[in-house]
Amino acid sequence: MDMKSFQEKIKTRWTEVGFMSVGLDPVVSKIPDSLKQAHSSVFDLIRVFDRAIIDATADLVCAFKPNSGFYESEGIEGLKALKATVDYIHEVYPDIPVIVDAKRGDIGSTSEAYARAVFDELGADAVTVQPYLGQTAIQPFLDRDDKGIFILARTSNEGAGEFQDLLVGGSNTPLYLHVAMQVANVWNKNKNCGLVVGATAPDELKAVREVVGDIPILIPGVGAQGGDAARVIEASALPHGGIILNSSRGVLYASSGADFAEAARASLIALKSVANGTHVL
Amino acid sequence: MDMKSFQEKIKTRWTEVGFMSVGLDPVVSKIPDSLKQAHSSVFDLIRVFDRAIIDATADLVCAFKPNSGFYESEGIEGLKALKATVDYIHEVYPDIPVIVDAKRGDIGSTSEAYARAVFDELGADAVTVQPYLGQTAIQPFLDRDDKGIFILARTSNEGAGEFQDLLVGGSNTPLYLHVAMQVANVWNKNKNCGLVVGATAPDELKAVREVVGDIPILIPGVGAQGGDAARVIEASALPHGGIILNSSRGVLYASSGADFAEAARASLIALKSVANGTHVL
Repeated sequence: MDMKSFQEKIKTRWTEVGFMSVGLDPVVSKIPDSLKQAHSSVFDLIRVFDRAIIDATADLVCAFKPNSGFYESEGIEGLKALKATVDYIHEVYPDIPVIVDAKRGDIGSTSEAYARAVFDELGADAVTVQPYLGQTAIQPFLDRDDKGIFILARTSNEGAGEFQDLLVGGSNTPLYLHVAMQVANVWNKNKNCGLVVGATAPDELKAVREVVGDIPILIPGVGAQGGDAARVIEASALPHGGIILNSSRGVLYASSGADFAEAARASLIALKSVANGTHVL
Repeated sequence: MDMKSFQEKIKTRWTEVGFMSVGLDPVVSKIPDSLKQAHSSVFDLIRVFDRAIIDATADLVCAFKPNSGFYESEGIEGLKALKATVDYIHEVYPDIPVIVDAKRGDIGSTSEAYARAVFDELGADAVTVQPYLGQTAIQPFLDRDDKGIFILARTSNEGAGEFQDLLVGGSNTPLYLHVAMQVANVWNKNKNCGLVVGATAPDELKAVREVVGDIPILIPGVGAQGGDAARVIEASALPHGGIILNSSRGVLYASSGADFAEAARASLIALKSVANGTHVL
């Protein structure tokens, strides 16, 4: 098994490659027909699609971020494909960390089971988790000091502010910022915490960066969700990296033809060159 | 497939059986040796353990609540067992709804995938979800009007108040109560919402019931987690039912011997008789 911690892996990738990541959100109906003709099982189809995207983009990314939901929606076949994809990245690209975007969160005894599922069964280097139940609930994740634990602060969806923007405790601090500060100041004893802040909220991202020091920020929503890479980088990047700027759909489904992998690569390169105007990736 | 909605199923069970539910949290290390000697695969072991518990308690419960985390921690074998357990309940006890305790929550396009996973692939009647991303994120769940969507309000863990008890928006309303009111007043257009409030927080439970009308409340944490059934019922039950009072570990692991299923039944009956002092179950 791989012995490098998430922290070591991501720092090396930031220095050598930059801070773009590719999110793996396989949707069977969007996978090109050319692959469907060659692969009849959902397991094979997703596995082969993921490998083509991974092989086409691996030299350009600091991480891959498979989202568990898209595999779970295909039942056991999909979950087998998720395991195969994580294994493939570890085998062929052992320096690239795998962030499983699972947004888990439960009471302590259940979080222990989830941590075992995502780190030991699946082999993730990092995971995304929900803050709502508080630190004690998330502790079994936080105890894994060789892993990365990315806690949701301000998410990328429309309507994210319904609760996240509420001012809390009679202060002028919105909930998302209070969560970010708790994570940075209290939860991060093992130096394994990160935060999730959507690319669609660059002002909130800037506010988070200002209060959390050099904690890594995972930033989904560049590309299909409309996040502006240059603004995002300006708001949050540090000289050594410090962010993981993720695009999923915009890269994965750049073409619905047999050239989908080349198109994914081209789309990622285009995003990187936009970002290059602001900061060397 | 079964055509009755979650709402129809749970109302009938409340009237005919009462409002206790059993949570299925299979932990391989806690499953009695007598079963381990007979079943060598994890799939068989969990499946057979679950069936024994289900058969021993089905006539006493309004619902079963498998917690996804405990199955996921056993990898693909565990996930196959979860599917087998849900199928078994539907086949043998078609009137008993299955609440999959998955605590999912992601942006809309991913929530759509999770809703498909839990309702269509797995066949759940109801699911637990996270509130943090707001209504728009959860909408693909809320759109399923024949299903039950239980949103976390005040959880049963120690430290649950870290964010949930924060007063929000310059008011005297804590976050958990604000979430509960949003769900009851805004999210519940399809009359398919419920809330999760831990049995360990009876005062908060009472405060929630006072503001949410007759919305169903799923109440975990009776038994092993220390929740007091009588106080909880007094704080939240309605004449027609209105609550799902869940015990998991206290029932499942009442005995580590070959009599585990009888012990589970006895433990559930004891909980029901405590509750009977307050309210007819």
